Amino acid sequence: MRRFATERAKKLIFGSLLSRSAPSSPLCSSSSSSAAAAAAAAAMSSTTITSSPVSVESINPKVLKCEYAVRGEIVSHAQRLQEELQTKPGSHPFDEILYCNIGNPQSLGQQPITFFREVLALCDHPSLLDKDETHGLFSADAIARAWQILDVIPGRATGAYSHSQGIKGLRDAIAAGIAARDGFPANPEDIYLTDGASPAVHMMMQLLLRSENDGILCPIPQYPLYSASIALHGGSLVPYYLDEAAGWGLETSELKKQLEEARSKGINVRALVVINPGNPTGQVLGEENQREIVEFCKNEGLVLLADEVYQENIYVEDKKFNSFKKVARSMGYGEEDLHLVSFQSVSKGYYGECGKRGGYMEVTGFRADVREQIYKVASVNLCSNISGQILASLVMNPPKVGDESYESYVAERDGILSSLARRAKALEDAFNNLEGVTCNKAEGAMYLFPRICLPQKAIEAARAVNKAPDAFYALRLLEATGIVVVPGSGFGQVPGTWHFRCTILPQEDKIPAIISRLKAFHEAFLDEFRD
Amino acid sequence: MRRFATERAKKLIFGSLLSRSAPSSPLCSSSSSSAAAAAAAAAMSSTTITSSPVSVESINPKVLKCEYAVRGEIVSHAQRLQEELQTKPGSHPFDEILYCNIGNPQSLGQQPITFFREVLALCDHPSLLDKDETHGLFSADAIARAWQILDVIPGRATGAYSHSQGIKGLRDAIAAGIAARDGFPANPEDIYLTDGASPAVHMMMQLLLRSENDGILCPIPQYPLYSASIALHGGSLVPYYLDEAAGWGLETSELKKQLEEARSKGINVRALVVINPGNPTGQVLGEENQREIVEFCKNEGLVLLADEVYQENIYVEDKKFNSFKKVARSMGYGEEDLHLVSFQSVSKGYYGECGKRGGYMEVTGFRADVREQIYKVASVNLCSNISGQILASLVMNPPKVGDESYESYVAERDGILSSLARRAKALEDAFNNLEGVTCNKAEGAMYLFPRICLPQKAIEAARAVNKAPDAFYALRLLEATGIVVVPGSGFGQVPGTWHFRCTILPQEDKIPAIISRLKAFHEAFLDEFRD
Repeated sequence: MRRFATERAKKLIFGSLLSRSAPSSPLCSSSSSSAAAAAAAAAMSSTTITSSPVSVESINPKVLKCEYAVRGEIVSHAQRLQEELQTKPGSHPFDEILYCNIGNPQSLGQQPITFFREVLALCDHPSLLDKDETHGLFSADAIARAWQILDVIPGRATGAYSHSQGIKGLRDAIAAGIAARDGFPANPEDIYLTDGASPAVHMMMQLLLRSENDGILCPIPQYPLYSASIALHGGSLVPYYLDEAAGWGLETSELKKQLEEARSKGINVRALVVINPGNPTGQVLGEENQREIVEFCKNEGLVLLADEVYQENIYVEDKKFNSFKKVARSMGYGEEDLHLVSFQSVSKGYYGECGKRGGYMEVTGFRADVREQIYKVASVNLCSNISGQILASLVMNPPKVGDESYESYVAERDGILSSLARRAKALEDAFNNLEGVTCNKAEGAMYLFPRICLPQKAIEAARAVNKAPDAFYALRLLEATGIVVVPGSGFGQVPGTWHFRCTILPQEDKIPAIISRLKAFHEAFLDEFRD
Repeated sequence: MRRFATERAKKLIFGSLLSRSAPSSPLCSSSSSSAAAAAAAAAMSSTTITSSPVSVESINPKVLKCEYAVRGEIVSHAQRLQEELQTKPGSHPFDEILYCNIGNPQSLGQQPITFFREVLALCDHPSLLDKDETHGLFSADAIARAWQILDVIPGRATGAYSHSQGIKGLRDAIAAGIAARDGFPANPEDIYLTDGASPAVHMMMQLLLRSENDGILCPIPQYPLYSASIALHGGSLVPYYLDEAAGWGLETSELKKQLEEARSKGINVRALVVINPGNPTGQVLGEENQREIVEFCKNEGLVLLADEVYQENIYVEDKKFNSFKKVARSMGYGEEDLHLVSFQSVSKGYYGECGKRGGYMEVTGFRADVREQIYKVASVNLCSNISGQILASLVMNPPKVGDESYESYVAERDGILSSLARRAKALEDAFNNLEGVTCNKAEGAMYLFPRICLPQKAIEAARAVNKAPDAFYALRLLEATGIVVVPGSGFGQVPGTWHFRCTILPQEDKIPAIISRLKAFHEAFLDEFRD
């Protein structure tokens, strides 16, 4: 596999991302939205009241500009097809829609970890704890844990707003979990509990971005929360490219080059986003590579925004998750040396509790007066949901050897993780067996990001219907098989290359059928458009 | 009581709120934060990298500008005192801190509604539904309701991300509840479930505000979520004054005057915020008044942002809650006539489930292409938490006559509401019995907003320590009694008048002691500063 990114192509994209009202970026495939953004920008110069109080021409152009492909056009189309299947069975050449667009394990049948749900139920309805029958229904350690949690909640009131950073006793448990993971201490005052990781990312973008002269270095391909959040908060995305030919490797020479180019254009680069394990790429960074990244951020005065939500999702023997905090501390760097934010979520890992909206960020190295500002922004929304807070404390402090639930917990956890590893391998092999498709290994996370070589005829057919070629491919795949994937253009990719993101989450017994449907579709597609 | 707002005073405030970088507004008492904002504005013009990657001089000045007094300086001080009480009992002239700063009923001992918690626990751990013992622990209608809810969740997966507007079947239940409340139909496609009402308010501000040339008409006094959200999204707050002498009445002549004045300054006023029942004022609007407001918004092309989170909190016989949607529909106005957003939350009412972070907005009258943009912004954060979604469906569809839980549910609900009414009356009377204090009735919501006539000497003493006089009073109250209230300057007030907001939420048996502590403090304060 050759390295795809030519210097010329990179410059082209870099320029358009930095321009003030980019008509099209590698992250946005929809031409209509950029046209609307241009119209809105034109409308902004006038204060005339439009005939309707609110129209797309008169709303915030940052909202128009933001795109979130993971729930974009393809997904809306899939929902329509699903309704058609319900109202008119047999109307499509498949029986069900398979949502491989989003890392939402329980929607595809993954079961929750029993211990976690026991504790949540007891905390939701604490009067159960006073009843004898409860001992027949719940494990002893779940009951004990529920008591422990209630005891750290003022008044045992699970229905009260908490401290805006989250319940102190739960932050203590999370800090202890981080310390056990890293071998370095963690401070509960550094933890901000949030409704999933997304609001935490928004908070940091809101804090750092003053105008489009402020930039954030983001990987390409990236998880579109970052491009969406940067757009909503009015900053500039400064892309750096992951090297597909090197297993989506992250080279600090590339970071340096893009940083300097941005600075030469007057962009004040505030932070570097690193997603490890990678989304959508699935790569897991090596420790030496992480040390270089830490050194780079320290030397260049950048905040390191470390998306570590897939920290439990590692599928290969030779890779291991290391938090950036552990790496920085093991290099001898303390609080004063590095501004580091680590994001974690209850939605990923083996737990996959997306609907609970729990998560946290650990904020280290920031001055006290800046932390006060972060606290203030958190306080405007009062607090994150208490069940999510409790669950965040549980995933960072699961049952231990000797606890009644320990063995069943380990069996559930390892069953899920080993099955995910098998599914990742089966899908990776299947993609690599398709003509014109190459796919890097999913070392971690929940996704594969195969590259597809599309025939010129397919590219022209896509253009004729005003679609990006990968979106055209994904739509055809959906219509033929019911499988929903996200076009690479939603994540960003080297211009002229085409990809899609597919989760590894369908249940294992469905994988063979998915592979044969994929294969049949792909062959028919190539036959239709072969040059 | 005379009408406080002089024309001159109003203009003064109005001008400062509309100016681009107001050094002080009636909503911000902290002088340090505005100085920091000015410093940040100066720093913005330069792209020089500061020595520290992040300092208050280099963060987003909108973050600096935003204030949220409900969890501001007084509360931080109270938390310090609480820690001192724990580490050094007897160190202060009181045994406990009484948090009357925030509408957080369960933190002060209010018990959750049993039926709601039963359903939540069963949905958190659905395998309970298969066990025989469960019938001994849960009411039959809670079990039936849990099944109903699970059946509308795809795959019964309460741990999956839902549709970004919320689970369709729960939106159906909420729409049915709205229709039953109003006598007019509601469309589940208009419902957007959110983590409490605050994120919904942010979403609307983000949508409507393009620059500081866009304004939002807000009551003064207001709930500081509005001023904070407008500041964070970079718009202008256009104040209109509630008439304290007329029981915090809302006059459309005042709305009209302020609208015209804002327009004459080039402000594009996008929306009107109405909080009904009022926060912090406790007033409940009459239906005729609401009709005038609807007419005003329709004629002036304003979005009506109706904060209706206290819809269940009415304490007087002669007032009744009417939703703005019901009022508009009963005037014969349909979708096309009015842009209306109604906010509701599970945090208020008799349920007071603040920690669950559930809520919704009902968005009517918006064009389909704008609704797509709202959906897109919602989708970037994936969905609100599922327990909060379930609870929102429960509060809009509680047990009915004939259900096993009905009688105990009604007893719990009415017990809470009648106690709140008694507490409101007792505190109102107590405030009105204090020298130089006048207090309107709390017809609804959870607050009293008494006006205090402060002696000139107290005002000077406050200035000497760089505090707003009402903040000075509130701090002295806290230090003498442990009672936490929020100074009126956090909500806005007619210049030269001083108020504080006090919740009616302390448990009933504590009210007499609170009143005598208040009285003793107030007399001593006046004696100290009497002119």
